[in-house]
Amino acid sequence: MGLVGGSLARALKRAGERVRGYDTDPSALRRACELGVIDEPCADLSRAVEGAEIVVIAVPLGAVAEIFQGLAGHLDEHAVITDVGSVKGFVVHAARRYLGHHLSRFVPGHPIAGTEHSGVESSCAGLFHGQRVILTPLAETDPRALERVRLLWRQTGAVVEDMGIDRHDQVFAATSHLPHVLAYALVRAAARVSGRSALVRYAAGGFADITRIASSNPGMWRDIFFANRARLIEMIERFREDLALLRDAIETEDGPAVVAFLDAAKNTRDALAAEQRIGADLVGDKKR
Amino acid sequence: MGLVGGSLARALKRAGERVRGYDTDPSALRRACELGVIDEPCADLSRAVEGAEIVVIAVPLGAVAEIFQGLAGHLDEHAVITDVGSVKGFVVHAARRYLGHHLSRFVPGHPIAGTEHSGVESSCAGLFHGQRVILTPLAETDPRALERVRLLWRQTGAVVEDMGIDRHDQVFAATSHLPHVLAYALVRAAARVSGRSALVRYAAGGFADITRIASSNPGMWRDIFFANRARLIEMIERFREDLALLRDAIETEDGPAVVAFLDAAKNTRDALAAEQRIGADLVGDKKR
Repeated sequence: MGLVGGSLARALKRAGERVRGYDTDPSALRRACELGVIDEPCADLSRAVEGAEIVVIAVPLGAVAEIFQGLAGHLDEHAVITDVGSVKGFVVHAARRYLGHHLSRFVPGHPIAGTEHSGVESSCAGLFHGQRVILTPLAETDPRALERVRLLWRQTGAVVEDMGIDRHDQVFAATSHLPHVLAYALVRAAARVSGRSALVRYAAGGFADITRIASSNPGMWRDIFFANRARLIEMIERFREDLALLRDAIETEDGPAVVAFLDAAKNTRDALAAEQRIGADLVGDKKR
Repeated sequence: MGLVGGSLARALKRAGERVRGYDTDPSALRRACELGVIDEPCADLSRAVEGAEIVVIAVPLGAVAEIFQGLAGHLDEHAVITDVGSVKGFVVHAARRYLGHHLSRFVPGHPIAGTEHSGVESSCAGLFHGQRVILTPLAETDPRALERVRLLWRQTGAVVEDMGIDRHDQVFAATSHLPHVLAYALVRAAARVSGRSALVRYAAGGFADITRIASSNPGMWRDIFFANRARLIEMIERFREDLALLRDAIETEDGPAVVAFLDAAKNTRDALAAEQRIGADLVGDKKR
């Protein structure tokens, strides 16, 4: 009953589904009820999954293994299981360990959506509309389970696609996990040098943008960093190489090298902005 | 006749001032005329400054010295001179060298506003409204010249304040120049590891935000990096220390250390977001 689980519940209810909710925090469960996010609150996990057609695990990565352990004995023999974790290798490792004969009905998933806010209070039915959801099926995944999870996400308006587990974890180390590391480190370094009050006072829109993700939930991101640790450390090393290249070109005042570096990055960034404008237009079309 | 010069010209015209424009690029000057940004285009610098009450230099930092050299012989004896450069030590060094007896009427300035777009086509009269403009007067600056430049910026709706030159260049190395270095390096590293097409396809809003400033003008940023070189290199080193701290805590899976690091950064970032909301509300009030 956080941002992602709550938003998915809202979208599914809007699509006509009946949704049960479970959370270890009773107050989150109560708020989810009060806000109309779910149809039925369940105080224990076994009751929540009993007879459920599809079970969605939307918890911080550090809690995934425990949840798998807790629900495996209570799942219906036809229940489809999926999750929303940002590091698929880590989740699949836990699934192989704890889901037993239910593994063939487990479909690892990752919706590429979110905000720097968290909690069921920030949830909204439109969070996934027009956004990508990546599924990373296993060799043993039952095609019907995969199709059921595809349908689930299509009900939210998301664009669903498949990807290999390793490739997924590599791409998101580069496009999501590293940027978070950099944003957190930048805020610390800038506050240390200019002083926190000057930082707050003089930081313009550029700094606010580049560090927005440093307002994300620390516990959730600790889990993600640890779950994708080897790839993230490798990615930080690649980044440090590129930073050193640019740093050296600045230190030696090598104008052509600096401009070539910036030009190439600007080109890629402009292509990304164009792609996102196209995406936004498509969403707009669907909403009309 | 770029984004900043064009936007200032538009704001001053709206406030009832008469504005002449000069650009080494004839097509930029022509577009500025067509768009109604200036009242009078001047094909040469001496004509542009002749009899002018106030002269605003809004060029990339690499062109500042040459412009000072070119206009010093043509300035009116009462003309106030100001600029919009992002590195004040660099500009003041050039001013001391080339402005001669006009130096006491030179007021170094820096509007904290801009977008990742450039060119007079992107200019708008409201660019500075509610934004800070920092002036870094010299010991020899004539108080009347300082007051005249304060008035100029207040005509645009900006909030004007003074700061020391060294402090300015330190604060903006931390809050602006370093973030640009990181954004450019991040785009390169991410594209290198995940491949450019995957990056464009899977990068979510967080990556788009953190790298927005990597769409900025490469030539302009090369000049800024070089003009504030020593402080920027020092700032990159401070950042590398903080990045190494976080990296090591992730590598050793030191949960409390990671959370403490992220919490402190989130705190600062949340304070910044609150300050900017207050700022936005103040702007809203003024606009109403």
